[in-house]
Amino acid sequence: MYKEKEKTIITSLQNSHIKELTKLNMKKYAKESDVFLVEGKHLVDEAYRNDILVEVLSVDDVDYKDVKITYVSFDIIKKITDTLNPQGIVGIVKKYSNKDYLQTIKKAKTVVLLDGVSDPGNLGTIIRTAAGFDVDLVLLSEDCVDLYNSKVVRATQGAIFNTNIFCYDIKKAINDLKNSDFLVLGTSLYNSLSLKDLDIKDNEKIAFVLGNEANGVKTEVLDLCDKNVRIDISNKIESLNVSVAGAIMMYYLSIKNK
Amino acid sequence: MYKEKEKTIITSLQNSHIKELTKLNMKKYAKESDVFLVEGKHLVDEAYRNDILVEVLSVDDVDYKDVKITYVSFDIIKKITDTLNPQGIVGIVKKYSNKDYLQTIKKAKTVVLLDGVSDPGNLGTIIRTAAGFDVDLVLLSEDCVDLYNSKVVRATQGAIFNTNIFCYDIKKAINDLKNSDFLVLGTSLYNSLSLKDLDIKDNEKIAFVLGNEANGVKTEVLDLCDKNVRIDISNKIESLNVSVAGAIMMYYLSIKNK
Repeated sequence: MYKEKEKTIITSLQNSHIKELTKLNMKKYAKESDVFLVEGKHLVDEAYRNDILVEVLSVDDVDYKDVKITYVSFDIIKKITDTLNPQGIVGIVKKYSNKDYLQTIKKAKTVVLLDGVSDPGNLGTIIRTAAGFDVDLVLLSEDCVDLYNSKVVRATQGAIFNTNIFCYDIKKAINDLKNSDFLVLGTSLYNSLSLKDLDIKDNEKIAFVLGNEANGVKTEVLDLCDKNVRIDISNKIESLNVSVAGAIMMYYLSIKNK
Repeated sequence: MYKEKEKTIITSLQNSHIKELTKLNMKKYAKESDVFLVEGKHLVDEAYRNDILVEVLSVDDVDYKDVKITYVSFDIIKKITDTLNPQGIVGIVKKYSNKDYLQTIKKAKTVVLLDGVSDPGNLGTIIRTAAGFDVDLVLLSEDCVDLYNSKVVRATQGAIFNTNIFCYDIKKAINDLKNSDFLVLGTSLYNSLSLKDLDIKDNEKIAFVLGNEANGVKTEVLDLCDKNVRIDISNKIESLNVSVAGAIMMYYLSIKNK
């Protein structure tokens, strides 16, 4: 005879566990926490595949082996996420811990540095693209938008779970990269070499810096770079979108620098 | 003696002119109208430079020679735009009229076709990038997101004003392009040639098709293309963002096909 497993469904927004989780939507708590929230089945599945899924809150029956499942009402899902039309599932996911920074640089061949990228969609898209072109490390300056912002996570489409990402002092990072024999490229429309004219040695280790949407890479950061490159554009636009510029650099370097 | 010019400021949301303009935020009216709204000084300036600015609504004093200026309260600006934090200025801008389609194809060298692109940010970014790489024509299938959606306009950063854009039957367009000796490329991860291995003749006329965010280019559209290309990506991601993939194609073709 079929017998349904008993399950408890939390429906009260006053439940202490739910109240704790709701705090993760507040910037202050989110920053200090060692977990973050992801919304929707695709991201929960990807977190599970990457073995960093801690807990699932779900409206419907789900099965993630060895992961704690908490059944909740749809109102609770809506309260916990800031998505307009959430699916009925939220994952609580471990943040990547930042201990292997120098080791990662030593093993890396391609590194992308972001100097003050502020739009969550851009940051997420850059991480997704970096995963696509096997970038070994994405390094965020301390004034970038928060990596665990829900819009960033969504735009990565799961790539946040399998990419090496560090938040670090960008000037120190450039020095560390130079000490590890990287060619460090700034990006700027001025005093720069066209990307297509860049000479690359066989197997050269390359890092490049992308800048803030409105202001580009800071002058004091450009000054630390070995040289600056630009992507030639017509005078019909002032600049490319930063995630677009980054993608072009990553693709171009991936085919030139085998 | 300094004498301030008299000006009338409309403050009533019931004003008939304001009521007409507010309708432009409703999809039904927006589609039928021959004008559209842009928000913020940058876009208003760009529309003016391109000589398609019909009227300006502004909270503060502004000067656009030969353009009708209507002074309004900030509440009216908020009512008319759907921006969260609008600046105090809105432009009413002429839509590009669709008469030179075949003529544009005949003179074109690079054409981008979009098959059901649905995200406004992606469509706007693709148009911005297309302007940057001197694409002669961006052709939208009839199931793309509305070109004059305010998020599309914002993401173009003004490139919507100086780019040839048509909404048209995409299958007919592919035939028209083939009849004008274009090489028409589909984009697909399957049954495709890697972009970097694509042979391009000197001065070849090239059109390529980008697809919907979730489903890619429709099979029946791919079937009409001369060949399919792909951008090689690692297995860490399922696909690139469509505006990223489009940008890589546009840059690559711009440096290969001089």
